Amino acid sequence: MAKQFDVVVIGAGPGGYIAAIRAAQLGMTVACIDAWTSPDGKPAPGGTCTNVGCIPSKALLQSSEHYEQANHHFAEHGIEIKGVGLKLDTLIGRKDTVVKQNNDGILYLFKKNKVTFFHGKGSFVAHVDGGWNIKVEGKSEEDLVAKHVVIATGSTPRELPGLPFDETQVLSNDGALRIPAVPKKLGVIGAGVIGLELGSVWRRLGAEVTVLEAMPDFLAVADQQVAKEAHKALTKQGLAIHTGVKIAEVKTGAKSVTIQYADAAGAEQKLVVDKLIVSIGRVPNVEGLGADVVGLKRDERGFIVVDDDCKTSLPNVWAVGDVVRGPMLAHKAEEEGVAVAERIAGQHGHVNFGTIPSVIYTSPEIAWVGKNEQQLKTEGREYKAGSFPFMANGRARALGDTTGFVKVLADAKTDEVLGVHIIGPMASELIAEAVTIMEFRGAAEDIARICHAHPTLSEAMKEAALAVDKRTLNF
Amino acid sequence: MAKQFDVVVIGAGPGGYIAAIRAAQLGMTVACIDAWTSPDGKPAPGGTCTNVGCIPSKALLQSSEHYEQANHHFAEHGIEIKGVGLKLDTLIGRKDTVVKQNNDGILYLFKKNKVTFFHGKGSFVAHVDGGWNIKVEGKSEEDLVAKHVVIATGSTPRELPGLPFDETQVLSNDGALRIPAVPKKLGVIGAGVIGLELGSVWRRLGAEVTVLEAMPDFLAVADQQVAKEAHKALTKQGLAIHTGVKIAEVKTGAKSVTIQYADAAGAEQKLVVDKLIVSIGRVPNVEGLGADVVGLKRDERGFIVVDDDCKTSLPNVWAVGDVVRGPMLAHKAEEEGVAVAERIAGQHGHVNFGTIPSVIYTSPEIAWVGKNEQQLKTEGREYKAGSFPFMANGRARALGDTTGFVKVLADAKTDEVLGVHIIGPMASELIAEAVTIMEFRGAAEDIARICHAHPTLSEAMKEAALAVDKRTLNF
Repeated sequence: MAKQFDVVVIGAGPGGYIAAIRAAQLGMTVACIDAWTSPDGKPAPGGTCTNVGCIPSKALLQSSEHYEQANHHFAEHGIEIKGVGLKLDTLIGRKDTVVKQNNDGILYLFKKNKVTFFHGKGSFVAHVDGGWNIKVEGKSEEDLVAKHVVIATGSTPRELPGLPFDETQVLSNDGALRIPAVPKKLGVIGAGVIGLELGSVWRRLGAEVTVLEAMPDFLAVADQQVAKEAHKALTKQGLAIHTGVKIAEVKTGAKSVTIQYADAAGAEQKLVVDKLIVSIGRVPNVEGLGADVVGLKRDERGFIVVDDDCKTSLPNVWAVGDVVRGPMLAHKAEEEGVAVAERIAGQHGHVNFGTIPSVIYTSPEIAWVGKNEQQLKTEGREYKAGSFPFMANGRARALGDTTGFVKVLADAKTDEVLGVHIIGPMASELIAEAVTIMEFRGAAEDIARICHAHPTLSEAMKEAALAVDKRTLNF
Repeated sequence: MAKQFDVVVIGAGPGGYIAAIRAAQLGMTVACIDAWTSPDGKPAPGGTCTNVGCIPSKALLQSSEHYEQANHHFAEHGIEIKGVGLKLDTLIGRKDTVVKQNNDGILYLFKKNKVTFFHGKGSFVAHVDGGWNIKVEGKSEEDLVAKHVVIATGSTPRELPGLPFDETQVLSNDGALRIPAVPKKLGVIGAGVIGLELGSVWRRLGAEVTVLEAMPDFLAVADQQVAKEAHKALTKQGLAIHTGVKIAEVKTGAKSVTIQYADAAGAEQKLVVDKLIVSIGRVPNVEGLGADVVGLKRDERGFIVVDDDCKTSLPNVWAVGDVVRGPMLAHKAEEEGVAVAERIAGQHGHVNFGTIPSVIYTSPEIAWVGKNEQQLKTEGREYKAGSFPFMANGRARALGDTTGFVKVLADAKTDEVLGVHIIGPMASELIAEAVTIMEFRGAAEDIARICHAHPTLSEAMKEAALAVDKRTLNF
C-alpha cells in the first residue's frame, strides 16, 4: 500500500531539503526523495550546491588561496618558506570531507525534523484519490501518495553541441572539482560564475588558464564598472580572457583538447589545452520526472512553468529553485522552498525577487544586489552613484588586499538604495548589509548615518553611501 | 596677528580629523592641530588609532595569522612547506608602511578638503574677541583664534602605579607593536581588547603568553556566553589566562620582569617574563591643553564633561572621542566628530549610542552591538535568545574555521532586536548587518525573512534569528 504524506519533495538540494524541513516544522508529514549518491554508494543529499557546486568550490578556493598567499605574498609579511609543495590529493580530499560533512548534516536534519528520506529517483505516476502518486526508484522501490508535491530537481550543466562531458578531458563543474593532477594548460569555455571560480582555483594551483567567452562584454550580468575591475584583476593574476569569440570546433585527442575559434576581430585561432572546462549555462532537470505523464506545463526552454508563488499548472504541485524561472542560486531556491512550505500550511510565504544577492567567489570577490547602472539607464531611471575604493580603507590596507570598490546606486529624488555593487575582499559577506538596507527600502543617507565599526571593510559601504551625496570622509 | 578660523580642532585622531573634514565640507574655515610625530620627525596624524592602535595591530594580526596558518593548518590543505622562518623586521616594517599610508592619507585629505594643518601641540590661551585664542607649540609657534573649538585629544595608556612604561621591558600598546625580537615569555596585565589582541599576535609568532586579569570574569564587558567561548578558544590556542588575580609587586630586572600576584584562590604566585604588556585601561588626554586656564570642566576621572551633543562647559567649545564619556572606540569618535561639525553648521547631527558596535580582533573575532544577556537580565527585560554555531555553516566549514556562533537577542513581545553577539570568523564584518537592523528597529523575524547569499558566514545571522523563533533550518 502506498505511503501517505502531506508533502513529498522531489530533490534534496537547497530548495528541496529546506522546503521539506520547513514543511515538517509546520506540522506536516513530509518525505524527501533524492537520488544523489556518494562515491561509496551512500545517499548524498544537498544537490549540486553541496556536491559539485557552492560548497566544494569554496573549499578549493580557500585551499588555493592559502597556496597563492604562500607563493606570492608571504615574503611581504616577513614569512620565509623554503619551497612550497602541493599534495593535490590531500587538497581534494579535504574538499570531499567538507562535502561529506554537509551531506551528513542534511541527513541529520531530516531525522531531527522527522522528514522521511528516500534514496532514489522520484517521479509522477498519476493523480489519485488523496493526491499525487509518486514512485521512488532506487535500491528498493517505494510507492507514495502526497497531498502536495514540491519539485526541486535542480539543473544540470549544458553541453556544447556534439561535445559530451567525459569528465576527464571535457569537464563540467563536477569534473573540474576533481582533476587528479594540476593541468599545465586549462581551457575554460564560458566566463560565467562557474568558469571564473574554477578557472581561478586551477590558475592559483599552477595551471595556465585561458577563458573563452562568446559574449562581447565580460561579465555582462554584472555592473560594467565592476566587470571592468574584475577583468583587470583577473588578467593581472594571469587568467587569459578572450571575449566575443565564436567556437568553431572542439576536438579531443589522446592527451589534449584542441579548440578552434574566431576571436573578436574574426581571426581564426587555435587553443590546445590538457583539459577543458565547459561552463556555458545550465538546463533544468526534468528528465525522468514523469512530467509528461501528468501533463506538467513547461516553457520552451524546458523550465517548469510557475507563477510568482511557485504554483505549477497542476493542482497542489509546486516547483522551486533552478527548475523554474529566475536566477539559479542556492539561496533563491531556499527562499522559495520556505515560502512554498508556508503557503501549503496556509501562511503567507514571501520571496522578494528584488533583493536576492549574487556572488562570485573569485579573488577579489564580487557581490551585488538590486539594479546595476546599465539596467537603470535602460529603464530611464534617474539615479545617483557613489563609489569608494578599498585602497582608501584602513582594514583593506592592513589585510594587504586593496583591490576593488563599493558602489551604491540611489534614486536621484528619494535617495532610496536601488543597487549595491561590490568587488573586493569579503564582498560576499559585505553584501548582507546592502540586502538589509534594501529590504527596509532605506536610503543612501541611512547607510551614511549608521555607525560602522573601525577598522572594517564595511566602512567602505558607509563611505560609498556618503559618496552618493559627494561627501566621502576618507577619499 | 592671530590666524582666524571658524573651527579649530585640537587632535587629528579619528574624532578630530573627521570633525575637521566634515566642518570644511560644510563651508567653514578649519584648522586641525596635532603633535604626533613619526620616527623621521614628520607629522603623523591619525592619533592612537592610526599610529599605535587599530591600524598597526590589524596589520600585525594579519601577518601573524598567515604565520599561524602556515605553521598549523597548511598540511590539512595539502600545502607542503619545508620550514617556516620569520623575518620580524620585515613584518614590523610592513606594519609601519601601512601606518604611514594612513598618516599620509590624512594629510592628503586635509589638503583636498582645505583644512589647514598645524604640526604641534594645541592649547587654550584665553577667550578673546572673536572666539577662543589657541596657541600651537611645535617647530614654529602659531597664534590662532577660533569661533568654535573641538577638543579631540584622545587618551593615553594607564600605568600601573609605580611602574612607568619604558617601552622596552614594560610595554604599553605602543611598545607592544614593535618588540624587536619575539620574546620567549610574554606577560600581559589586563585581559581587555588591547591585551588580548597583542597577546594573540605574539603568541602566534612564538611567544609563551600569560595573561593576568584582576576581574573575576573573563571579558566582563562581553556577553558571558561569548566570553566563555572566547576563553575556550584562546586557551586552546595556548594563551594562559588567569582571572581574579591581585598584582602584589612588579620588579624589572636586567633582562626580565617578575610579577608577584595572588591568584583567584588567594595563593601567592610568581611569574617571570622577558617582556610585560600593561593594558589596564586608558586615561583621557588633557595635559597641556590649558583646560584650567579657561576653566574647562572635567569629571573626577579627568574626562571633559559634555552633554549628549558633545557641548562642554564653555561656550562654543566641544569635545569628542576618548577624552569624553562613552566607549573609547575610533568609530564612536568619528560619529561624534561628524555630529559636532554638523551642529556647528546649524544642522542636526546625531549619534545613536545604542548602536555602536564593539569589536575584538582576536581569532576568532568577537563583535557585538546592543545589549547582552546579563544586561537584559539586570534590567528585568523579557527577551528571547537564538544562537547558531558556525560549525553548522557551510562557508565556515569550507574556510576551515568553525569556532563560535551568532546570538540574536530580541524583545519577548515585540521581537525587536535588542542585541547581536558574534564570536567567529569575520565577526567584525558580520556585525554591520546587525547594526543596520537595529538602526531600523527591525525584528528578529526581519533578519530571518531577508535573503542571505549562500554560502556565506552571514547565513549564520539569519539562522540565529530563526533560532529566536525556534525554527532554525540548518541546525
